[in-house]
Amino acid sequence: MTIRIGADEMMPFLEEVFPQVAGMFGIDRLDEDLLIMRLYSHERHLRPGGTVSGPAMFGLADVSAYVATMARIGREALAVTTNCSIDFMRKPVAGADVLAKCRVLKLGRSLSVCDVLLYSEGMAEPVARASLTYSLPPVAAG
Amino acid sequence: MTIRIGADEMMPFLEEVFPQVAGMFGIDRLDEDLLIMRLYSHERHLRPGGTVSGPAMFGLADVSAYVATMARIGREALAVTTNCSIDFMRKPVAGADVLAKCRVLKLGRSLSVCDVLLYSEGMAEPVARASLTYSLPPVAAG
Amino acid sequence: MTIRIGADEMMPFLEEVFPQVAGMFGIDRLDEDLLIMRLYSHERHLRPGGTVSGPAMFGLADVSAYVATMARIGREALAVTTNCSIDFMRKPVAGADVLAKCRVLKLGRSLSVCDVLLYSEGMAEPVARASLTYSLPPVAAG
Amino acid sequence: MTIRIGADEMMPFLEEVFPQVAGMFGIDRLDEDLLIMRLYSHERHLRPGGTVSGPAMFGLADVSAYVATMARIGREALAVTTNCSIDFMRKPVAGADVLAKCRVLKLGRSLSVCDVLLYSEGMAEPVARASLTYSLPPVAAG
Repeated sequence: MTIRIGADEMMPFLEEVFPQVAGMFGIDRLDEDLLIMRLYSHERHLRPGGTVSGPAMFGLADVSAYVATMARIGREALAVTTNCSIDFMRKPVAGADVLAKCRVLKLGRSLSVCDVLLYSEGMAEPVARASLTYSLPPVAAG
Repeated sequence: MTIRIGADEMMPFLEEVFPQVAGMFGIDRLDEDLLIMRLYSHERHLRPGGTVSGPAMFGLADVSAYVATMARIGREALAVTTNCSIDFMRKPVAGADVLAKCRVLKLGRSLSVCDVLLYSEGMAEPVARASLTYSLPPVAAG
Repeated sequence: MTIRIGADEMMPFLEEVFPQVAGMFGIDRLDEDLLIMRLYSHERHLRPGGTVSGPAMFGLADVSAYVATMARIGREALAVTTNCSIDFMRKPVAGADVLAKCRVLKLGRSLSVCDVLLYSEGMAEPVARASLTYSLPPVAAG
Repeated sequence: MTIRIGADEMMPFLEEVFPQVAGMFGIDRLDEDLLIMRLYSHERHLRPGGTVSGPAMFGLADVSAYVATMARIGREALAVTTNCSIDFMRKPVAGADVLAKCRVLKLGRSLSVCDVLLYSEGMAEPVARASLTYSLPPVAAG
């Protein structure tokens, strides 16, 4: 599963496709073994008490699986989330960025399946885990 | 499973506990059979093309299960999401509110399990379904 | 979503495709609104104490979603399970058949999504719920 | 998370608690980092065509999470599956044992969360992945 879109090219692509998330995420690593994405800790993701919200963690897992998939299939392609199962296991550290470590378990003709572990930066044990399935519709002939 | 917090009392409670979601959600119905919550269509939930984002639908499902659970166990209690499985099935209608129809399948001593169907208002078939588990930690003696 | 294979035709088809499950399952109802399948209580599904095992309940949910899908797409087609999320909520009644009430939430070109509630016969509240996704590969031209 | 029940002690315990699975499973490795369990390929798990059935793979994932949890909390304790999400990704190899590689992501006071990858022996890529939650009820005072 060769990487067709590297980190440098991916961020502008992501912000072009989803302008509303500009500035929310960064890519720490993107290679054949592992993608590490970062959710910058911002006030609007916080619950009272300062931890990151469930929807923000879901969003990070979802965008990670999207990036890991698109990096392999290329930007002409389409990908839509069809399923996510997520377990919230520990309270994230207030004020810390959240890191997603994402692996592609399957990249088929019509589906990709990714596994994501989420960590508060600086904490050894994961705060959440998620698995996501993306459907890869055939591209319309141009 | 008697309702201990009705719709009128729930909205101020919800906005007190999660001030960051003030104005995002409404309650159309809250009784023993069914909770219907509404996500007001706002610009910031939209993807380009105008549909509601995955994290916004996750957030609506999550808050519905929280409201359905708290309505039964009362506001002194605690509840944290431990698991969500969500299937995205259809593209939401651009500009339409999203409605969550939530049922409580189990309310045990330590867990509640809820089932949620999400609809674009005015569309017959669901855009997504979700099941959520909340852990109900024992309340510290006061 | 018209029914193309009714209950009478479905059981012989099921036992032809999966001979190893012959005698395990029955169909109580199969129409456009609802499928009800039955797992006959047999010794080999039991745990000590006499309740139905988790794998047996998973198997019932899985076969229900398969039957509900095949009833609509027809027997020339293929369908393989790609995802199942299942919540076990209550202990099944020892010695009682388990009933699956299965609804098709989506039948697309390449995926079907089904929702299943499992009941011990004679008990009002569900023992488990499951959602299943089947992938529908294109049929090879004949 | 120290191991309190090692592989030698675990197999007799497992067959005492679940006599119906005697002979189905083996333990290749059980330590703090990883549990590897094996489903012996037997005729009754096979579909026509010879691959391992979905319920048999579910059963292997479920028993792995049970063993990994009990190994840490000890045999006086109770553990019941509350949720499983499983993705079936590839067709298992006919006639090959299936190996489950199970990691404990969380062991809390009332819940354990495990992650499982399933492999056909001799095949590099996983055939399925699963995450499971066990509820750990308090033990009745003796």
